[in-house]
Amino acid sequence: MNIIDIINKKKNKDILLEEEITFFINGYVNNEIPDYQISSLLMAILLNGMNEDETYYLTKAMINTGAIIDLSDVDGIVVDKHSSGGVGDSVTLVLTPILAACHLKVAKMSGRGLTHTGGTIDKLESIPNFKVMLDNKTFIKQVNEVGMAIIAQSDELVLADKKLYALRDVTGTVQSIPLIASSIISKKIASNADMILLDIKVGQGAFMNNEEDAYELATLMIKIAQKFNKKMRAVITAMDNPLGRSIGNNLEVIEAINILKNKEKHELRELSIDLAAIILKETNIVKTIDEGKLLALEKIENNEAFLKFKEFVNAQQGDTTYLDDVSKFARAAHVIAIKTPIKGYLNSIDALVLGQLACSLGAGRYTKDDLIDYSAGIVLKVGINDYLNENDIIGYLHSNKPITNEQLMLFNNAFKIGAFMINKAPLIRVVI
Amino acid sequence: MNIIDIINKKKNKDILLEEEITFFINGYVNNEIPDYQISSLLMAILLNGMNEDETYYLTKAMINTGAIIDLSDVDGIVVDKHSSGGVGDSVTLVLTPILAACHLKVAKMSGRGLTHTGGTIDKLESIPNFKVMLDNKTFIKQVNEVGMAIIAQSDELVLADKKLYALRDVTGTVQSIPLIASSIISKKIASNADMILLDIKVGQGAFMNNEEDAYELATLMIKIAQKFNKKMRAVITAMDNPLGRSIGNNLEVIEAINILKNKEKHELRELSIDLAAIILKETNIVKTIDEGKLLALEKIENNEAFLKFKEFVNAQQGDTTYLDDVSKFARAAHVIAIKTPIKGYLNSIDALVLGQLACSLGAGRYTKDDLIDYSAGIVLKVGINDYLNENDIIGYLHSNKPITNEQLMLFNNAFKIGAFMINKAPLIRVVI
Repeated sequence: MNIIDIINKKKNKDILLEEEITFFINGYVNNEIPDYQISSLLMAILLNGMNEDETYYLTKAMINTGAIIDLSDVDGIVVDKHSSGGVGDSVTLVLTPILAACHLKVAKMSGRGLTHTGGTIDKLESIPNFKVMLDNKTFIKQVNEVGMAIIAQSDELVLADKKLYALRDVTGTVQSIPLIASSIISKKIASNADMILLDIKVGQGAFMNNEEDAYELATLMIKIAQKFNKKMRAVITAMDNPLGRSIGNNLEVIEAINILKNKEKHELRELSIDLAAIILKETNIVKTIDEGKLLALEKIENNEAFLKFKEFVNAQQGDTTYLDDVSKFARAAHVIAIKTPIKGYLNSIDALVLGQLACSLGAGRYTKDDLIDYSAGIVLKVGINDYLNENDIIGYLHSNKPITNEQLMLFNNAFKIGAFMINKAPLIRVVI
Repeated sequence: MNIIDIINKKKNKDILLEEEITFFINGYVNNEIPDYQISSLLMAILLNGMNEDETYYLTKAMINTGAIIDLSDVDGIVVDKHSSGGVGDSVTLVLTPILAACHLKVAKMSGRGLTHTGGTIDKLESIPNFKVMLDNKTFIKQVNEVGMAIIAQSDELVLADKKLYALRDVTGTVQSIPLIASSIISKKIASNADMILLDIKVGQGAFMNNEEDAYELATLMIKIAQKFNKKMRAVITAMDNPLGRSIGNNLEVIEAINILKNKEKHELRELSIDLAAIILKETNIVKTIDEGKLLALEKIENNEAFLKFKEFVNAQQGDTTYLDDVSKFARAAHVIAIKTPIKGYLNSIDALVLGQLACSLGAGRYTKDDLIDYSAGIVLKVGINDYLNENDIIGYLHSNKPITNEQLMLFNNAFKIGAFMINKAPLIRVVI
């Protein structure tokens, strides 16, 4: 077998065989096939596609470059949730303690942020002393005892994915449904939960702008998961406006804590409850979605979810005094209030612009080696269809670097204010 | 400007701007853009195409990575011929002395062979002491005094082409009409002849199998040459059967010498005369193609072409005693006569198989660093529609390595023998 023949097959729209796919994945991981041949093949895959079988073989080959996490010692049903990435998306922080409070088990590996989208691991690290690396034994023990653990994705999980993603990122080959599907599913299968919920974000602030593509991706991923005998559901959710009211690492942690303390009741809380309900129903904890929503809400209102979160943070050595008193979190040197120059109803907030702005304030990374500033970001004080008077504060920019006029302008331009309220579409577009 | 944006544009079938094309060519040549980004872009170009303007800008950017040969000191009309590569294609060796004998000037840069196609420079080097490198002053002086000079293409001619071709070769991105066109035309424009004839080979033994693609390529190249104010014509010629009766370096030189000595009269001679006639007409040496053919033939019959060839070889320090007595040329240790096992009319000879076989006998290179054996190759004793009796010799394999049974079998299988003669299509399919 020869990599040039494989490239030529895909270039000519032929279907690759399992052994050909395994050959190029293994050859790449073992440094036997150079980057420049794989990037040419990735572009051919992006432009000529892969069918369901090819995507399954690709996923399988990728999984086999690492180890599948052994969760056999976990008592109970292990659940997982994956978001395709958005702005102000801290669902994991709110959802997982609710699920653990309902006696499901969360044994989760999360990633770090890149460009305008944040990552759960960075957010958790903004809690002083929080440890994102646990050895396997400690991880399983914590899942059994606390009900949840969230650790940084091990580099050994799906070796091929890390290497392929880094190459796709710099060769214009990210936006390919089979490549995205195999990247996500390989990691989810290797993480080995019993039930997995995918949250595919669609809109301005997401990697996908188009609902049909998101639907195609979600159904493909579910079909592939089925071939691995994994129970998987997917939701397609809106990511035009930021999901939470905070963007940036410790700012998002503070918002999640406030939701768990039942002090904030915006979209982030709403979606977390909706997703909890789907998982609770799928795992037969409840019989209907409505029952699931009520149970999730109860876990917030009776403080069990917050206490579970605290127990989890404590187990991973994070300083829980910050959870009790969020004013202890590091605060940026410059915090500037921004006022609206005009009055009217808030019709939209551009999630992509705010995500990029937060990144430029220090909250995100442009390349994977950049350091991030946990206290930097944006806090919004308003939501869609709020009526704003002239000079009302719409939000705050937090930064340890001087804030530039360009950044102020970017922020203001992200808000569209109109004379009328708009029809708000539901956050969840489709459940698959 | 950013290479990922350029890749994304071509991936999305957008048209690249001149500055974007110049940016990626210069960035690649200056080692600022890595192979893996260029190979992804090349695959996007191969699959999504380039229009005439883009191909022109690409050609221009490539030319500007090297120097244009200064031929201003050459007296007279400089002509050039380029073949897209075939098996047993020694047209250059026969054609150029005919043209020089007609007082046209040949200031030619040629390449080396790769895989199943030979290269003029390798063939000339099979003449003992022949020098393929001349400094610029000596080159121009020889062209003025002898009427012709053929030297190895300088690495500085079109820097980008060398680097791009090496990458295309290993990334499945050779077969792209805009990439082929820009590669050929950039070198031809930089070589700076007044009139250029392209010989686009089509068929089994050529890089192109399909006449429509060859037509598209030829018309595109002529249009691009026009943008550089260059007079260019093209012919599409058959490359199903080998063109000459010899395949291999000194074997092809011997055949060319025998044609120039008016001792052999097969297809190679016919095509050389036909191409000479087109060039003679285009440069107004003659008024009609028929007149051109007569003049070319006269130069063979009156020995002027052979004497010109000898003068040229002598000027480049080659040992001309080999031209007078071709039996002096090195002969391989193993020369095996092959007989036909069946009788009938010879209907076809697979040029690709024989090209590959000659390569495996030592006549060609698999990678550009392989050494070649000048005396290795194949000599055919029969042509299409010859009637063969059982045990007639159809040809000889020449090799310095023991000849294997597999090689003998390959040779025999390359010949199709039938009960009837076939209709021979003309060698020149189209003149453009």
